[in-house]
Formats: sequence, C-alpha cells, structure tokens
Amino acid sequence: MLLNCDLGESYGSATIGADAAVMPHIDQANIACGFHAGDPLTIRQTLALAAAHGVTVGAHPAYPDLVGFGRRSMTLSSDEIIASVHYQVAALDGMAKNEGLTLDYVKPHGALYHDMMARAEVRAAIFQAIRSYNRSLTLVMQATAKAEEYRIEAADAGVQVQFEAFADRCYADDGTLVHRSKADAVHPRARMLEQVAQLIRHSTITTQSGHTIPLQADTLCVHGDNPKAVRAIEAIRSLLIRG
Amino acid sequence: MLLNCDLGESYGSATIGADAAVMPHIDQANIACGFHAGDPLTIRQTLALAAAHGVTVGAHPAYPDLVGFGRRSMTLSSDEIIASVHYQVAALDGMAKNEGLTLDYVKPHGALYHDMMARAEVRAAIFQAIRSYNRSLTLVMQATAKAEEYRIEAADAGVQVQFEAFADRCYADDGTLVHRSKADAVHPRARMLEQVAQLIRHSTITTQSGHTIPLQADTLCVHGDNPKAVRAIEAIRSLLIRG
Amino acid sequence: MLLNCDLGESYGSATIGADAAVMPHIDQANIACGFHAGDPLTIRQTLALAAAHGVTVGAHPAYPDLVGFGRRSMTLSSDEIIASVHYQVAALDGMAKNEGLTLDYVKPHGALYHDMMARAEVRAAIFQAIRSYNRSLTLVMQATAKAEEYRIEAADAGVQVQFEAFADRCYADDGTLVHRSKADAVHPRARMLEQVAQLIRHSTITTQSGHTIPLQADTLCVHGDNPKAVRAIEAIRSLLIRG
Amino acid sequence: MLLNCDLGESYGSATIGADAAVMPHIDQANIACGFHAGDPLTIRQTLALAAAHGVTVGAHPAYPDLVGFGRRSMTLSSDEIIASVHYQVAALDGMAKNEGLTLDYVKPHGALYHDMMARAEVRAAIFQAIRSYNRSLTLVMQATAKAEEYRIEAADAGVQVQFEAFADRCYADDGTLVHRSKADAVHPRARMLEQVAQLIRHSTITTQSGHTIPLQADTLCVHGDNPKAVRAIEAIRSLLIRG
Repeated sequence: MLLNCDLGESYGSATIGADAAVMPHIDQANIACGFHAGDPLTIRQTLALAAAHGVTVGAHPAYPDLVGFGRRSMTLSSDEIIASVHYQVAALDGMAKNEGLTLDYVKPHGALYHDMMARAEVRAAIFQAIRSYNRSLTLVMQATAKAEEYRIEAADAGVQVQFEAFADRCYADDGTLVHRSKADAVHPRARMLEQVAQLIRHSTITTQSGHTIPLQADTLCVHGDNPKAVRAIEAIRSLLIRG
Repeated sequence: MLLNCDLGESYGSATIGADAAVMPHIDQANIACGFHAGDPLTIRQTLALAAAHGVTVGAHPAYPDLVGFGRRSMTLSSDEIIASVHYQVAALDGMAKNEGLTLDYVKPHGALYHDMMARAEVRAAIFQAIRSYNRSLTLVMQATAKAEEYRIEAADAGVQVQFEAFADRCYADDGTLVHRSKADAVHPRARMLEQVAQLIRHSTITTQSGHTIPLQADTLCVHGDNPKAVRAIEAIRSLLIRG
Repeated sequence: MLLNCDLGESYGSATIGADAAVMPHIDQANIACGFHAGDPLTIRQTLALAAAHGVTVGAHPAYPDLVGFGRRSMTLSSDEIIASVHYQVAALDGMAKNEGLTLDYVKPHGALYHDMMARAEVRAAIFQAIRSYNRSLTLVMQATAKAEEYRIEAADAGVQVQFEAFADRCYADDGTLVHRSKADAVHPRARMLEQVAQLIRHSTITTQSGHTIPLQADTLCVHGDNPKAVRAIEAIRSLLIRG
Repeated sequence: MLLNCDLGESYGSATIGADAAVMPHIDQANIACGFHAGDPLTIRQTLALAAAHGVTVGAHPAYPDLVGFGRRSMTLSSDEIIASVHYQVAALDGMAKNEGLTLDYVKPHGALYHDMMARAEVRAAIFQAIRSYNRSLTLVMQATAKAEEYRIEAADAGVQVQFEAFADRCYADDGTLVHRSKADAVHPRARMLEQVAQLIRHSTITTQSGHTIPLQADTLCVHGDNPKAVRAIEAIRSLLIRG
C-alpha cells in the first residue's frame, strides 16, 4: 500500500503544511494546482522536492475557490468541470516535465472530490476530463463499499482508478467516513495505527458500530500539516515496512 | 509576413473580442492563459476555433492582474516571472494537445511584454522560462531598431525569436511606438494600409517625423475587438496576398 | 411600481451592460459589489451615474465567484454568508456616501438570490446580515405565492422586504419562474408589455398554464444588457406612467 | 508613543499571525481589507478581537495582489488607487461599525506604503482618497527626515498624519530604513530595545553609520508573526510603561 499526501498548499507568502518534512516519508504527492491553493512558485518548489525524494506526483485539482480552500461545493456545469480539470492538470503536467517528472495521477480536492463520490454527473465529467487528456493518468477515488461499481463505471469511461483509504478517520458501515462534525470521527494515534495494520493485513476495517467490513485500498491518505502529523506518517511507514 | 492577434480574452460570461470573426483571417492566435483574461472554458473554445481554421497557436501569458487586464506593471522577482510563465504556458500547452494542436510560440501580454522590451532582467527571466520549458517554442518580441541586439541576446540564452510590427501604430525614429496618449499615435485606415504595404515591400517604416527606417518583421499584430477591426484585418490580408 | 436593474457589472477593461443608457429610465440601481463583477472604479462610476439621475442605489452582493459571475451555487456556512454580505454591503455603503448617496436596499445576486428563495438557512443568514448591519436597509426578494410567509419571516428577523416581479419571464402556477431552459420561458416584447400592464392594473399574472394568480410586486426587475433591452425599459416606463 | 501591528492577515483556512496573542499588547490594529489578505470572516473576527481589548482599529489597504501579499509595486493610475482605497476603507469602516467600533486611521500596506513614501503622485492619490472619504481618518506614514515636509503636504491636502517608526529595523542617515537584503538590517532583541528606549526618551535614532538623528514618531510598528515576536512586543510595552 502506498502513502499519499496533499502538498504544495502554500500560497504566496502564506506557508501551509510541513512539505519538506513530509516528502521523505510518502510515495505520492497530491500537488495543489492554483485553484484552491498553490501559486506557480510553490508548485515548482513542491515538484522539485518530490523529484529530490523520488516521490510520484499527481495533480490535485479543485473548484476555483481560493478563499474557501476548495472545500465548498459549487454547481459547475460538466463543461466547466472538464475545462477546469484540464487547465489545472495541464499546468501541473507541463511544470512536472520541467522538473524531469511525469505526472502520474489525478486526485480531485475537497468539495470536488466529495461531489465526485456523491454525484454521477460530476464523476462522469471527471472521467471525461482525464480520458480526453489522454495521458495514462490514473484517477484516485475513495475506497467505499461501492468501489467495484465505480471501478467498472470508470473502466467503461476509459479511466483507470486507484482507491484510497484514510488512516485516521472513523468509518460507517457503508464504508463512507463518519462526518468530521461527529464525536469520534477522527481516531487518536493508537487507534489509527490499529486501523492501518488491519487494512494492510486483512483489507478490512472496523466500523464505528463495531462491524468488520472489507475495504481494499491501493493507497492511504495521510496528512502533513504539522510536526505531530509528520511523526504519525513515520509510524505508519514503519507499519508498512513491517507489513 | 504572418498576422497575429490576441484572442481568447473573454472571461466567464463577459464576451471580449470578435474571436469567431477574426480567426478565419489570421495565422497566429495569441491565447490568453487565465492571468489577465481567459477562463478554462474560453481557452478550450478558442483552441477549438483555431484548430478548425488551421491557425497556429501561441500562449499569451501575463502578470496576475485580472482587474487590470495585465496592463499594469508589477515588480515580480525573476523566479516569480519564470514560474508564472511556466504555469501559464503549461496550461495552454496541455490544453492545445487536447485539441490536436501543438503550441508554437509565446508572446507575453501587456505590461509583461512592455517590461520585457524595456528591462534586461525581465527579458532574461522570460528567456529562461522558455528555454527551460524545452519545447522549441519561439518568443515573439517587438521589432525595433534593437532587434538584432535582442536576437543575439535571445540566441545566447537558447531562445529563438520572431519580431512583430504593428499595422496601425505610428512609429518614432528609434523604431519604438509613439505612445497612445499622443496625437496621431494610431493611424487611420488608409495610412495603416500604406504602412503595411511599405513593411511588406521594403521592410521599412516611415516614422512620425517623416524619416524612413528599416524594420524587419516576421509577423504583424492586428486587433480583433469589433466588426470594424475585422474588416481592417481583411484588408491587410488582401494586401499580403497581392504582396 | 418601481423599476430596478442590475448595473455596475463591468470589470476592469471589460464593459458589461449599457449602464449610461439605462440609468435615466430606472428607479433603483442594483450595484455589483466586486464579488461577481464590479471593480472599485466601476462602482464609483456607477454610483456617480446614479447620483446624476436621482436613482436610488442598492447593494447587489454575490457569492465570491468572478469567473462564474455569481451564478453558481456555493455551500457557504451561515457565518461566511453573513460576513461576505457585510463586506460587500459596507463597501457599497461607504462608497455611496462619497457620492452623496444613501444606500437604500440589498438585493442578493444570482445563485445567492436563488438560494435565499429556496433555502431557509440562507434566508436566515441574509436576514441576520442585513439586520445586524443596522442601517434601515430593505431586502429585495422575489414575489411568489409565498410572499406573505416570507414577509412575516423577515419581519420576525427585523428586516423589511420589497418584492420584485420580472417583466419578461414566464411564471408557473406557484408564482415561481419557468426555468430559462424551457420553451417560452422568456416573453417576446408584446407579451412582456401585457404582463407588466396586468401586474400594474390588477396585481395578477397569467401563468404558463393559463391560470390567473395574484402577484403583488413593489418593484419590477428589468435588464439593461443592450440597446434593445433599453428600448424595452422605455416601453415599460411609458406603461407605468400611463398606469 | 503607541504600538501598531498588522493583523487580520489570515485568508480562508490559512492562519497567518498570532493575532489573539498580540491584541492585548497593542494600541492600534492595522486590519487587512481583502486585497492582499483578510477575507470577510477574518476581518469580522479581528474587529471583534480588537473590540474585546479596546484596541483602536485602522484600515490596511493594499494593491490587489493576493498571491504577492501586496508586496509588489503595481502601476495603478491615481483614479484606480483612489477607488481601491475607498473600497477597502469602506468595507472596514462598515464592518467596524457592526462591532461597535469607529475606524480611526488608514495605513497603506506593503508596496502601496512604499510607493506612497517614494512617489508624490501616489501620495497625492492617497491623500485625496482619505480626504474625500470624509471621516476624520488619520493617515499613518513613515517617520523619516522628510516628515515635516510630508506633514505640510498632507495638511495642504486636508489630511492629518501620524508618523510611525520601526522598533527592530536599522536606519540610514536620511531616516529611511536599511534594506532588508543588507546585513544588520534587522536588530537583535537587545539592540531593538535600546532603539525603542532612545526613541521614547530622546526622539532620536542611532543610524547604521553611528550618527544620531532626530526621529519623531507617534506610533511604533511591531510585528506579531509568532510567539517570539509577541514576547518582543511585551518587552517594548514594558519599556513604554516605564518611559
């Protein structure tokens, strides 16, 4: 299982995230493309950092909402979604080549990611955007009980998918995440490590209600916001190495 | 001599320029990249229009100044210029490929263009941005008395240059443009056609003071703001065909 | 009945709308506040134009979506809506004073307007924003079959309301507008003038299905996008004068 | 002598500055207005924090350059400067009233501040913006050897001025700041406290070359970026109390 992390979220003089501390410990860097975070200079520096650590890079496109950090749903038309994803992916793609890297995947950010998981027409627009960009790019989606259904939907649209799980988030019985506003939505460190170990060894997850459900994940989303988060990534990495 | 025109300057629901009427008559479309104008959907539509008419496409990057339409000089560092040009050129480059087009050149817009002509460090940053993007892209610069000097400067930096002249603008004796704020800065139609004919046949220009100076241009910048401007382009095209 | 029109929607060098031609014929100018359109210079010029013609001015706040012209719904929290409305209304309020004008009302724009009509929590946030701004500002809402209900809801929240009808839009039996995507959604000129006459004389509207329903409107929303639209406003004004 | 600090520079989910820790120790909060930093919700929270601590509030308008944090000079016309300052000051003014506060002063930010000190036409535009806003607002300018000249220039334009000095910056013999790129441009803590003490007791400053020059300051600019900066403010406050 791979580790992916949202990076390159600084903007101008505002430094967001501990990118330099996180990069040595992850496999995949989801790099902000300028619509919710990430100015051109930040993108370049993040790509250079990824290159230095041999980390695979992906585009992390979002709704055009800088002040809302891409976390607010917006009712874009399918055409607007496709063109916006093309623009952001193309910007990352070209800048990655400049650093000797090949863009590997696309993981939508924030509300665009949630809308993709929740609404078929958003999903269809993102599938079309990736396939028509025509670069063997993989799409990262959330691993839920519907994963196989989505894999087929994507394959029919000509898109390959990776599924990601969350290390520190509590799951509901349908394989979706318990909303952050709920109690116990985010695991403390020990419970997080248990969840990761279970995912690695058994491809299952224990839900909030105590049920065990299957959850097949190709990559694990970790967070790199601060030094404590970086130490959590190191602990997860140790688990992955031990297996 | 080629005809180039700034296009794709619409933004969201604001339609700017008569792009569909202009495209059949030009050789090169300078397409806005989103920093001074041009949202993703507009970029896509402009590229598709260029593809339909067999028009060569170039990126038209600018300072990040939407409200000022990129016409206001900004003191960006060289690194900021390079990264901003990379981002914009990459976005156009990738989206052009989606339409089956190959990005051919870069022509900086507005204040970035003027600063490039006026300041060596801005020129050096743009040279570096284009060369490091590594795609055989040509840079469009203004034809002035210093053209040969700039051609050598660019060649030393590994960049190929095209020079452009202006059909309807009055020139000073040093081959620069008479400022728009001055009387007689913009030629009426008959005088414009005379200037174009002289450029084509003799590679010279008659300046405001009546002198004849050499001016070698590879491409001629025309404007497509409205129906009258489109008719002027048609008249220039007739001249070019007759030679 | 008053006539209101969305104005001040130019942005930088992009001129939107025939503001100077419209202003002599209307009573209320809904002035864009910078979030969907309207840069500071445009706001100042629009206010000065309103002052010259004795037109009452209102703030026309929107979601922060320049590229989408405020027409795309965004899931802002109540706090974000309140602060965003405060910011935009305050900017207009202060700039209006500079031109010797007193801001009179608030009419939300585009998707914010539609969300206000459709969702109680958006409505509550806008009520709170206006009341807490504490300036005797009136809120303009859409006249529908629920008008009396909304008037009470607003009064309970300490806000006074004006209701607006649309001159050229076809109505459904519940007093909402037939969606623009449907056939016959927008009336031709003759039918528009009939609708206005009926509204003035009888406070009723004939719906798409042929029913007559009551519709009490304080103000009529007209459009000033182009010369044809301006002539329509003049015709409506003549009707209002004749009564 | 008062203490002023730039605050409210967070933007959306990006938290910038230790506002809550700084506010108890200062007299004047220079609040970002949305053009270089400061979204509507941040403005409201910063105003509420100022109200809670009895801190005087000022508007901190900037060039429209979010990605550059307002630190890059832009060639705005006088009309653009005036309208931009009006818009930002009005937004702060109205939102301050909502929190029971009265806007007291205007301190331009970053490149706009530097351009005001360096260029007469920028200064004239800012004078005109403040006077025409007509609210007894004071303008904060930098204390230099030219202070008396500027005070007269401002008074002639109908504007009252406060002069500010910098606690931790090294001064040149003409009373301007040694550029940040130079060695010794920023004082270590002990030297900073000496400089403040000298300013308080003698209204003089010891320049980089060792000369003592007069420098009359009404207010002292301090920084609140992090916990160390907050402790420096506390030390300066102790000095001011002891006198």
